[in-house]
Amino acid sequence: MTLKTQAVEVPANQKVEKVLKTYFNEDFARKAEALKPQLHEWIDRPLSVIKFEADEKAFFNCKPVHTHTIEELQDLSYGKGDQIILDFGSHRVGYLSCHLAVDGVNVDAPTRLRLTFGEIPYDVTEVLHPCNTWISTSWLPDEIINVDWLPTDVDMPRRYSFRYLKIDIIDTSPKYKVKFQDIKVRAVSAISPEVALASQNISIADKELALIDHISQVTLRNCMQTVFEDGPRRDRRLWLGDLRLQALTNYCTFKDYSLVKRCLYMFAALPREDGSLPACLFEKPKLAPASDYIVDYDSLFGPTVYDYTVAAGDLQTAIELWPTILSSLKIPLGHVGKDGKFDSSASEAWKFLDWSDGLDTNAGMHGLVMFACKEVNKLALLISKPQPFLDIVEKMTVAAKSFYDESQGVFVSGPDNQISWTSQAWLSLAQAVDPQTCLRALKTAMSLPKAVKPLTPYAYHHVAEALARSGGEKECVKLIREYWGGMAKAGADTFWECFDEKDSRRSPYGDCHNNSYCHAWSCTPSYLLRVALKDYLEKS
Amino acid sequence: MTLKTQAVEVPANQKVEKVLKTYFNEDFARKAEALKPQLHEWIDRPLSVIKFEADEKAFFNCKPVHTHTIEELQDLSYGKGDQIILDFGSHRVGYLSCHLAVDGVNVDAPTRLRLTFGEIPYDVTEVLHPCNTWISTSWLPDEIINVDWLPTDVDMPRRYSFRYLKIDIIDTSPKYKVKFQDIKVRAVSAISPEVALASQNISIADKELALIDHISQVTLRNCMQTVFEDGPRRDRRLWLGDLRLQALTNYCTFKDYSLVKRCLYMFAALPREDGSLPACLFEKPKLAPASDYIVDYDSLFGPTVYDYTVAAGDLQTAIELWPTILSSLKIPLGHVGKDGKFDSSASEAWKFLDWSDGLDTNAGMHGLVMFACKEVNKLALLISKPQPFLDIVEKMTVAAKSFYDESQGVFVSGPDNQISWTSQAWLSLAQAVDPQTCLRALKTAMSLPKAVKPLTPYAYHHVAEALARSGGEKECVKLIREYWGGMAKAGADTFWECFDEKDSRRSPYGDCHNNSYCHAWSCTPSYLLRVALKDYLEKS
Repeated sequence: MTLKTQAVEVPANQKVEKVLKTYFNEDFARKAEALKPQLHEWIDRPLSVIKFEADEKAFFNCKPVHTHTIEELQDLSYGKGDQIILDFGSHRVGYLSCHLAVDGVNVDAPTRLRLTFGEIPYDVTEVLHPCNTWISTSWLPDEIINVDWLPTDVDMPRRYSFRYLKIDIIDTSPKYKVKFQDIKVRAVSAISPEVALASQNISIADKELALIDHISQVTLRNCMQTVFEDGPRRDRRLWLGDLRLQALTNYCTFKDYSLVKRCLYMFAALPREDGSLPACLFEKPKLAPASDYIVDYDSLFGPTVYDYTVAAGDLQTAIELWPTILSSLKIPLGHVGKDGKFDSSASEAWKFLDWSDGLDTNAGMHGLVMFACKEVNKLALLISKPQPFLDIVEKMTVAAKSFYDESQGVFVSGPDNQISWTSQAWLSLAQAVDPQTCLRALKTAMSLPKAVKPLTPYAYHHVAEALARSGGEKECVKLIREYWGGMAKAGADTFWECFDEKDSRRSPYGDCHNNSYCHAWSCTPSYLLRVALKDYLEKS
Repeated sequence: MTLKTQAVEVPANQKVEKVLKTYFNEDFARKAEALKPQLHEWIDRPLSVIKFEADEKAFFNCKPVHTHTIEELQDLSYGKGDQIILDFGSHRVGYLSCHLAVDGVNVDAPTRLRLTFGEIPYDVTEVLHPCNTWISTSWLPDEIINVDWLPTDVDMPRRYSFRYLKIDIIDTSPKYKVKFQDIKVRAVSAISPEVALASQNISIADKELALIDHISQVTLRNCMQTVFEDGPRRDRRLWLGDLRLQALTNYCTFKDYSLVKRCLYMFAALPREDGSLPACLFEKPKLAPASDYIVDYDSLFGPTVYDYTVAAGDLQTAIELWPTILSSLKIPLGHVGKDGKFDSSASEAWKFLDWSDGLDTNAGMHGLVMFACKEVNKLALLISKPQPFLDIVEKMTVAAKSFYDESQGVFVSGPDNQISWTSQAWLSLAQAVDPQTCLRALKTAMSLPKAVKPLTPYAYHHVAEALARSGGEKECVKLIREYWGGMAKAGADTFWECFDEKDSRRSPYGDCHNNSYCHAWSCTPSYLLRVALKDYLEKS
């Protein structure tokens, strides 16, 4: 989550909203706390000292060139104005440390260093400040430190998310230089390296798809900390809509049911006065809701519990969370009129679906809420409750047809009959019409230049899954190759918050230095390949 | 110590010298370690929030203006681009902490702050970077911090030396601002506030001199940490020549004999292969000599032990250090020729005396080494040793006359018969001729525009003491009023490393932001007023 359109002004829907009162559920919060994982830790070291050279063929217009081995680095001395870039070989989340040794007769002044943690080359090949952005520049991944007494060990107390480490030696003194030894990162994740390795034991014969699967898993693993973070660099928070996709991918890879359960209880601990759930929450310094509210995220709590129940076989949790689930659909269903149609204009509340410019949300939200009701009905069966949304699903199924434009063969949305990929995706996922019609609608929209395309991997996921669920497995694989495969070709170690193959500087924030390049809502190809496309890939 | 002429290039005598082997004396090092003081700690809080306004009449061209009380500050919120300046009322050395509170609904990003610790207004009214200097810019008193989870307490781990604290709020986020609460400094010194207060119980009726005495003591106290530091901001080291002046002032104020003893043993633990002592040493990360060697500082070890022995009545230490004392005069006396004259050209070794441009050191060093020999002879009497330097003193006394120019009534130095205040000072302190002749030489040089004036308070001290010891008490008081009184009028809370009443930006380093404004070799007015001028002031 946390994306927005190409503007440096704070977007209107990001202004601080009315803050609703939270009815903090101590019992649920305690359950969540008890499920807090002990993170796995392991040591990783840089592979080499590099520099970047211009390469206009590369996505980021540069290529890494090896300059020294790490063994050689131990004996190299650096003084005022020097710079080194270390390559850890892949993306890491963790805590940096090193030994600062001395070359000189007198350490007669402190050492001042700027450390910059790069997820992509631009982070370390460009100057980060000033940053023209509408979100906080405090996210920029650089740190200035002053070290008084050398030689010494340096332990950086904050957690960073990076593949590259640039060290600018701001100053030592004319009488000494520094040497960087024993540089390492204490990497952390809720998932141990062994589990991560084991999860790769499925055969995806196609090398490109296998690589995409691998990158997806690294992305997910690096986001799995004491909660499912949206991005370990920014903004390190638990968002409900992102959680659902992470959890789905987790079930077919690492199978950490406990962390999902913890996150479900965290949301359930924070119901608002109107029964809705916050779109995201803060784990630190103490469990607290963000003021953000998103209608679609609220709706997706029930489906997320349903997925968890099926995957983990844990009925008890679903039973405990049942009242929260029913409550979380109240505001979304409040947008459904007597005609059974979802009406985005029924409230000021934020309907997200995607960050694409000008997206009309009526049709997509109709599909999404209908989908959610169906999932919750299925959950009711599992835990022997009466299905609560049979009537509304029936009504919305009828009403869904009014979004369908027979002449064009697509779903249209809003007063201008907007055609978007996202509208097709959610009405397909809701199985609002038969799969053949859904597939045709999806393929038609995707072929229409005027159709509103997704901007985020979050929305691309729902298009991809809708294709796979509607008999468009071939098209789904094509989309994965193009979109996530495009990131892989561009050099991604982990999948990104946003990707525009034509613009390596594309950012929802005005400056790509504020982007997150390990972003959990990008991790779903593993789920698509291992679950949604399983049969298709085995046959083909 | 650590001063140099107005040039941004590294001065030639600051290039790294030949590093002599050190014969580390474990026994002396252990004694020094055993004397390491437990520092006194106390809490001080800022007095008000201020801003600086232009004031062309003020030395630093600005004046502080109160904007808020500290009580008011608690409720004020600050966001991106804001700045506050806090005034702690006087100079402090210690550790800063505060509570960062929040004004906003979501702490959805870290807080990034720049903290700048100002000893003088320029430190907080100007941008410190870039800094055009030949010493290390790592000394600049600013720090950038990133705070991940708010609200929280912030404890800055490094020690700072400051009166003013400027906080630049680099960023919070559009969704919250920060509030600064419970800001305090845990001040540290080897001297407790009670001792510091008690030391002021002498009556100096003259208000101006009383103020100068007070500032001197604050300067000394803030430099007295686990060693006598030259300056608590920069370069936080123990220099032998500076130590002597600090120790003298300490004996008539705080009377911390133990810290002096510790520092004497630290130097004695680090004799070099030629028997000489390093000009300065490092306490951290472990006791080690600097490569710097200064002939005059080496010579002053014996006098410093003598002063200590008289003040503390501790003969045993002098007896233990006696071989070190004799050894430390070898290199200096190696410059004295068969004619009994000190010859600066006899070696390449650094003769300091002062940082004034082009100072010829032959006459001054003659006086200084002769003075040192006399003091060591006096020490020999105290500890019942044969006086080792009777012959050489006699010889140098005769030779000293050859520096005297009868026609001008001053001592001259070197091939160009240079006249400097410093030459007069050291030959007077050595009592090379009778006091009347010394006083006339001092007064004459001080009245000659062509005479080389001192640049540092270190050299001004020796001129002032020479005046007081030669019957020029009145002139000494006048010099104190002009020089140290000039700093007091300019707003000094502690006395500075260097002072030019006509140029508030004067720096030995090219940029005054690298100056030290609490510098121990400036602290001697208390010694002059309480000891050298005691009788005179009581009578007048």
